[in-house]
Amino acid sequence: MKQLLERVKYIAFDADDTLWVNEPYFRQAEAEYCRVLERFAAPREIIDTLYQTELKNLAPYGYGAKAFTISLMETAIGFSNRGEQEGIKPLTPPEMAEVIRIGTSLINVPMEVLPGVKHLLEKLHKSGKYQLVVATKGDLLDQNRKLQRSALAGHFNKVEVMYDKNEETYRALLGRLGCKPEEFLMIGNSMKSDILPVLNIGGYAIYIPFHSTWEHEKVEGVVVHPNLRSCGSCEDLLGMF
Amino acid sequence: MKQLLERVKYIAFDADDTLWVNEPYFRQAEAEYCRVLERFAAPREIIDTLYQTELKNLAPYGYGAKAFTISLMETAIGFSNRGEQEGIKPLTPPEMAEVIRIGTSLINVPMEVLPGVKHLLEKLHKSGKYQLVVATKGDLLDQNRKLQRSALAGHFNKVEVMYDKNEETYRALLGRLGCKPEEFLMIGNSMKSDILPVLNIGGYAIYIPFHSTWEHEKVEGVVVHPNLRSCGSCEDLLGMF
Repeated sequence: MKQLLERVKYIAFDADDTLWVNEPYFRQAEAEYCRVLERFAAPREIIDTLYQTELKNLAPYGYGAKAFTISLMETAIGFSNRGEQEGIKPLTPPEMAEVIRIGTSLINVPMEVLPGVKHLLEKLHKSGKYQLVVATKGDLLDQNRKLQRSALAGHFNKVEVMYDKNEETYRALLGRLGCKPEEFLMIGNSMKSDILPVLNIGGYAIYIPFHSTWEHEKVEGVVVHPNLRSCGSCEDLLGMF
Repeated sequence: MKQLLERVKYIAFDADDTLWVNEPYFRQAEAEYCRVLERFAAPREIIDTLYQTELKNLAPYGYGAKAFTISLMETAIGFSNRGEQEGIKPLTPPEMAEVIRIGTSLINVPMEVLPGVKHLLEKLHKSGKYQLVVATKGDLLDQNRKLQRSALAGHFNKVEVMYDKNEETYRALLGRLGCKPEEFLMIGNSMKSDILPVLNIGGYAIYIPFHSTWEHEKVEGVVVHPNLRSCGSCEDLLGMF
């Protein structure tokens, strides 16, 4: 591993579910949402329909709690319209208010930094060998606020909130950093967003799976690549640098 | 003016209502919204209440069409709940869908670049004397998309979507650019966001008022400052550089 990292000058970290807990709060919000809509459909159908709405809305609305809130509202209206034809009482304004509360509550979830993150960042920062970067999708305001609340901001040289994570946007990021692909290491929990595009442009990646992953970020099969390592947590990475 | 600009190396442009038309679409959306809610209140009261909701939501949700959509829905629910006590039929799910459509339609409004902008950017870019920057608030995804659609992206060296525009965030921007305050010129239509904080940290500013300004961006009184100039449009600026 140490040999692998010899040329690395920039280490970028994904934020949600790599630096701190995020996805479980979305799952919890979905469970509350299913209770509001329980007279219209079973939880499984509600979650599946919501996911389809989210996919449809990904291009126009992007990632984050506000986009999620709009998807929750649209999906709820769809179930209500269908239910009305079957004689089910339509969604009421107070229920819609509850839907908005569930969605927007995600803007202010408790900040729980993942195990080993703080020590790893301190060690990397103190070594003086690397430029440390946050490279995250999501909402600009949300992610800046979370970084402040995490008390991790001081360790990073740069924060990049990207509107998407693909080969093109990583190339643009490297351009802004003035960094060659072989000097770049990305650490994250999403094969699709954090790992594969970085490997494809010639960078290095460390995959730290998180127990809860959004459907959209999942990748089928096992990825094997000379520039890729996997580990259980940032704690396990401490010995590698 | 030319003397004023001798030391300037970085010219930053605000985007909405400086590079392209934005605010009139929000006004148009508000008018449509008032028609949906007409059985609950008069347009003036609806607009005023919406503005209060937007102010309350500015800190948690930030700027942009998604935040606006959530504010529209929250305000509509408030009117519906109040109206119900007076025997007015509550907001229906199809009406809620219409509210969402009105809000999210702002993500995809026609792109209308303001007069003189294209020529001015071409001239500044060709001169090779300045680094050109977009410095805008709003939603990261929205603003990047608008910049692509405007066909102006190629003229800019850097795009900065800021989560707020105040002295602190301008200082951070100058830090990222490696630019001294006296080398920085900001061009924009909002006294509050584009002009005053830049003057306060020692930069230069050109104020180009736009006929339609959001209440929140308005500043009372006349601002006079040695580092400030005003003009009618980017067209008028062509002769100044």
